[in-house]
Amino acid sequence: MPHPFDPGYFDEPFRALASEYPGADVYPSDQFRVEWGPIFHRGRLDGSARVLVIGQDPAQHETIVRRILVGEAGRRLQGLLAKLGITKSYVFINTFLYSVYGSVKTKTKKDTRLIDYRNLWIDALISNGQVEAVLALGSAADEAWQLWKKTSKGKAFKGAYAPVIHPTYPESFSKGDKVKLAEATKRLLKNWNGALQQLKSVIVHPDSPTPLLLYGDIWADGERPQVPEIDFPAGLPAWMHEQDGWARRVGKDDLEKRRSIEIRVPKGIVQ
Amino acid sequence: MPHPFDPGYFDEPFRALASEYPGADVYPSDQFRVEWGPIFHRGRLDGSARVLVIGQDPAQHETIVRRILVGEAGRRLQGLLAKLGITKSYVFINTFLYSVYGSVKTKTKKDTRLIDYRNLWIDALISNGQVEAVLALGSAADEAWQLWKKTSKGKAFKGAYAPVIHPTYPESFSKGDKVKLAEATKRLLKNWNGALQQLKSVIVHPDSPTPLLLYGDIWADGERPQVPEIDFPAGLPAWMHEQDGWARRVGKDDLEKRRSIEIRVPKGIVQ
Repeated sequence: MPHPFDPGYFDEPFRALASEYPGADVYPSDQFRVEWGPIFHRGRLDGSARVLVIGQDPAQHETIVRRILVGEAGRRLQGLLAKLGITKSYVFINTFLYSVYGSVKTKTKKDTRLIDYRNLWIDALISNGQVEAVLALGSAADEAWQLWKKTSKGKAFKGAYAPVIHPTYPESFSKGDKVKLAEATKRLLKNWNGALQQLKSVIVHPDSPTPLLLYGDIWADGERPQVPEIDFPAGLPAWMHEQDGWARRVGKDDLEKRRSIEIRVPKGIVQ
Repeated sequence: MPHPFDPGYFDEPFRALASEYPGADVYPSDQFRVEWGPIFHRGRLDGSARVLVIGQDPAQHETIVRRILVGEAGRRLQGLLAKLGITKSYVFINTFLYSVYGSVKTKTKKDTRLIDYRNLWIDALISNGQVEAVLALGSAADEAWQLWKKTSKGKAFKGAYAPVIHPTYPESFSKGDKVKLAEATKRLLKNWNGALQQLKSVIVHPDSPTPLLLYGDIWADGERPQVPEIDFPAGLPAWMHEQDGWARRVGKDDLEKRRSIEIRVPKGIVQ
């Protein structure tokens, strides 16, 4: 059985972008987990992407597989794109190359070196004119997009743009409160329905044409599909792309937690 | 500062080899840690390799970075190649795609599916006629080479071949006994000196021509150089290629140890 994979950063300009990137001088280590290295993207770099998504920052699963949006947020996004008929022709980058630690200072967000590098990625992903729509997940991603839109290439872009609520906003907002979680989920899905209605007619080259089926008030079956194997680097085991929860930051204090990631093969795989 | 990296399995036949590989039906899970996925190679896949090295099997650091021979064995090998003037024009594969768990049964070693797949890699790496010498690390690798030599392409290969003692044989042989460790290290270095004398004149296209400097009885300064950054996938942090010891199998029993790898950023990197 073949295992399709993402070949990564072979062709220019992606090879250069994955070789020369901002480090701790641009992403200060009191605001970012720079010690785990940058994580660049997920999806198509071959010019076939019809939808560009800007996310926020990578977390621990992303750190291990070296691709972004591979956990719960990624599955929810995968479901949103599927409702638009986009099952493979997408590409994602993040606002930030490194995982946010605490919060990001305004001065950091405005650092032209950070912005210019990110704009090079957007330039590269938009340049062939195939991208029909751009989605931004959360406010930091929206800001990133607005900064690119001010550039000359940004001004020339004619595709659609939809800023949406971040896929895991309900969890971060509700902090374990089930009532708040339900409310926030409903709010998110309503927001996403707005984006679906806006973008449906804009996506004129879907991978799998499909009638528009809006979200209800809760996540329905099939609305959080798996991240496809083809989005991961070669040779990763199935459990790394079929689920998340297998990577945790462990340790007795904040410093130890910051220094460690424990990977555990899910139950039932090793006997 | 640019961070050169290994772009991996983009061109054929490597793209196909990294996509369709033997699984647990060929590598039984009582003999291999198949649950962590296959790990294919380290080094040049662009036809520039002058030396092909066959190692044994990957361990925990290899599992995280998805390249082989990146730990202590890799550094010792790097030093051996440097004495031949080979600092970048090399490529390594392993006898086994997965980490050995316990020991490998003869029936498994003789499985034609295992052998045929490995032979496809050797075919691909030898095919352009640039490889001047082949090294096998340990007896399993030597057996792998002999099996390839029986094929029609193997019979046609005119380069040199040197089977050597595995780079971490002294540690596995001595099991913590310092006297045995010193003896085994001396034995290994003597064995490696033999290979150096055999291969020195064979490597006619070294990267950095250098006079032959044989090993003494112990590892000398500079004989275990770092694995170069260019051998790792894009974006990995410096500590992942500058040292090892940052990945451990943890857990209270054998099953838990098999299921877990803990990664810890070395001290002094996160404040």
